[in-house]
Amino acid sequence: MERVGVVGLGTMGGAMAVNIARAGFPLVVWNRSPGRTGEFEALGIPVAGTPGVLAAAVDVVLVSVSDTPDVETVLFGPEGVATGAAPGTLVIDCSTIDPAAARGFAARLGEQGVEFVDAPVTGGSEGAKNATLAILVGGDPANVERAGPIFAAIGRTVTRFGPVGAGQAAKAVNQVVVAATYMGVAEGIVLAIKAGLNAEQVVEALSGGAAQSWVLTNRSHRMLANEYPPGFQVALHLKDLAIALALARASGAVLPVAALVSQLEAGLVALGHGSDDLSALARSIRALSGLDA
Amino acid sequence: MERVGVVGLGTMGGAMAVNIARAGFPLVVWNRSPGRTGEFEALGIPVAGTPGVLAAAVDVVLVSVSDTPDVETVLFGPEGVATGAAPGTLVIDCSTIDPAAARGFAARLGEQGVEFVDAPVTGGSEGAKNATLAILVGGDPANVERAGPIFAAIGRTVTRFGPVGAGQAAKAVNQVVVAATYMGVAEGIVLAIKAGLNAEQVVEALSGGAAQSWVLTNRSHRMLANEYPPGFQVALHLKDLAIALALARASGAVLPVAALVSQLEAGLVALGHGSDDLSALARSIRALSGLDA
Repeated sequence: MERVGVVGLGTMGGAMAVNIARAGFPLVVWNRSPGRTGEFEALGIPVAGTPGVLAAAVDVVLVSVSDTPDVETVLFGPEGVATGAAPGTLVIDCSTIDPAAARGFAARLGEQGVEFVDAPVTGGSEGAKNATLAILVGGDPANVERAGPIFAAIGRTVTRFGPVGAGQAAKAVNQVVVAATYMGVAEGIVLAIKAGLNAEQVVEALSGGAAQSWVLTNRSHRMLANEYPPGFQVALHLKDLAIALALARASGAVLPVAALVSQLEAGLVALGHGSDDLSALARSIRALSGLDA
Repeated sequence: MERVGVVGLGTMGGAMAVNIARAGFPLVVWNRSPGRTGEFEALGIPVAGTPGVLAAAVDVVLVSVSDTPDVETVLFGPEGVATGAAPGTLVIDCSTIDPAAARGFAARLGEQGVEFVDAPVTGGSEGAKNATLAILVGGDPANVERAGPIFAAIGRTVTRFGPVGAGQAAKAVNQVVVAATYMGVAEGIVLAIKAGLNAEQVVEALSGGAAQSWVLTNRSHRMLANEYPPGFQVALHLKDLAIALALARASGAVLPVAALVSQLEAGLVALGHGSDDLSALARSIRALSGLDA
């Protein structure tokens, strides 16, 4: 079994690391803030001092951090993965970042013989915990095959969409579809409330037809209760929509609803709701409609 | 069993009439254009000369026509239901119309002792044919109970949302949710195409996660093929969104995505695509993005 290093022990990366250890891979971890490493030390899993030290000790480095600049720092910073990785090391980036940046990172790592696949995921914190993530992959087929046993430890489905960057592009599509779906449910819930209907009854009745969606089933109740416990953060979806809209600009796609949703999300972040679950898009529609005033 | 008259033998009303006859109700039908009545004459089902004549011959009148003015004409026109209906007759309106208009019609019929429930449906032409419609009902509980055996003949689920008009309000909510869901899938499909991905593979991979919806599963392939065989017509959804936006205005709900979608649908109708299936919203996004140019 290849030795694996996990860089980034947040909600997603931490759960992936646990599942990789459970699957029996020799594991080393690193996290920017040391607070998250105690759990791993308690399990006897070594904690590296820097990403570079981690990379020198393993065959495969899995990265799970927040945004493009974070990936750049852990890969190419003064103590980054690139300072320690031997030729032949494989970097699997599970962060959601710009597809063009992923291609740039792959090229830079390639100069020193280090391989790269982009492998953003969907399925949220539950998916990470239960190893049921959908993994959206871009990269050389040989590298994707090599990553297979690790993907099997952290997720349920693996789809290779093409060369490096293609996984990120597919993730961008996911976030665009999700944006409008949440908004439709938010608008529907608010209309139901304002029109004096029993909104729970409406959700129930509509769930069997063309309005059916994962969001309607799983997130409409949060919108109704106007409570958005941490889940998939608004601020992270806004970051992902920025990536999708940049990809749209670069490829010539026009996405009016995704652009509108990103504006509302920027407003939510500015009002201090950035760490709410994405269902907090209903906050915007509720506020525009004078609910909770 | 009560004697039933069906007014309006289009895709929806015609299928409902067939299912009502199959369930054993004594049936009379009427249609504005005589072309649709031949099938019923062949089955030995009497065709009335006017809605008023039909109403005089039955206990319950089920109306299934396109829009508010059509309902007004068949109910209150010179040869309308109101000219023939005896006190105690029940009118079930399965058309999708303005909730306030439904309340007005109920009040006018009430002056002559005729009862009214609004009962718009979801589930499309397949649902009408297979008697699997979801029926969204507003009206007095006693009238809704009386309509029960007829609802059982045409649909699978029946939900009473409140007094007259509440069924129409729930239908408006459905159309608002549907609008954004179609747009999200349309934007996602176009981004996938423009970004060079295999869009079918993307649909498959996203279907297990938060982007999942009936639309993604059942309509994304039409958007990909850029072919929109008749299904739920753009022009009818535009009419329904106009109802929803009027209800929103009246009740103080703000629906930015529904409003945006209604603009794009008006454009499609103006360009001659009004009888396309609603998945033709992808035409707008494809055109804005320079596909099919």
